Amino acid sequence: MIELNFEKMGGLVPAIAQDASSGDVLMLAFMNRQAWEETLKTGMATYYSRTRDSLWVKGLTSGHVQQVREIRVDCDNDTVLLKVDQVGGAACHTGYASCFYQKVEGEELVTVGTPVFDPKEVYKK
Amino acid sequence: MIELNFEKMGGLVPAIAQDASSGDVLMLAFMNRQAWEETLKTGMATYYSRTRDSLWVKGLTSGHVQQVREIRVDCDNDTVLLKVDQVGGAACHTGYASCFYQKVEGEELVTVGTPVFDPKEVYKK
Repeated sequence: MIELNFEKMGGLVPAIAQDASSGDVLMLAFMNRQAWEETLKTGMATYYSRTRDSLWVKGLTSGHVQQVREIRVDCDNDTVLLKVDQVGGAACHTGYASCFYQKVEGEELVTVGTPVFDPKEVYKK
Repeated sequence: MIELNFEKMGGLVPAIAQDASSGDVLMLAFMNRQAWEETLKTGMATYYSRTRDSLWVKGLTSGHVQQVREIRVDCDNDTVLLKVDQVGGAACHTGYASCFYQKVEGEELVTVGTPVFDPKEVYKK
């Protein structure tokens, strides 16, 4: 198994998900060792949720999973870049394709683009 | 000033630098509030170095600064995406264009691409 440096962040590494086709950066999340190993094993982007303190297979609730096409590791082995196919076309729980839908314009954050799905429909309770 | 959530990571937010032209993800670093404000003010990517515990204007030593073309903020205001022009063509201190020059192939990390510069030349002491 490829060894990452989990020490710097107390057991975690940041993981960037990038759309394999468009090159758009979709989101940033964190992986612990188990999330990293599950991602390698299953080919599905798996993160560690800090708020829920648990493994998090991205898209398991919404169906919007991330199929991993390529994995890159940075120069000091403490950050991961996943190139993914984003099922459903949206990575963000708000319905936007990318979590980075807020653009800095002067002193303000302006929303860019329109949601791909309606969260109320997708996350029915 | 646009307010980010620095609480989650004890005063820091992760910041991703992406090449504004190619869309390649160049590196990930961290910003404290001061680094964020300096980046907004100067238009030069400025990070916070955890190892040196100091502000870090990217490229100040090598000349390979990052001119910020666009700034995106994610859905919960705790991660930044900088779209930059990478002066010198390389973001990584190893001389590679991107820090993510290691690709996972099976059980191994394989180097992708060739360095743009020789670190020994750039970081003369």
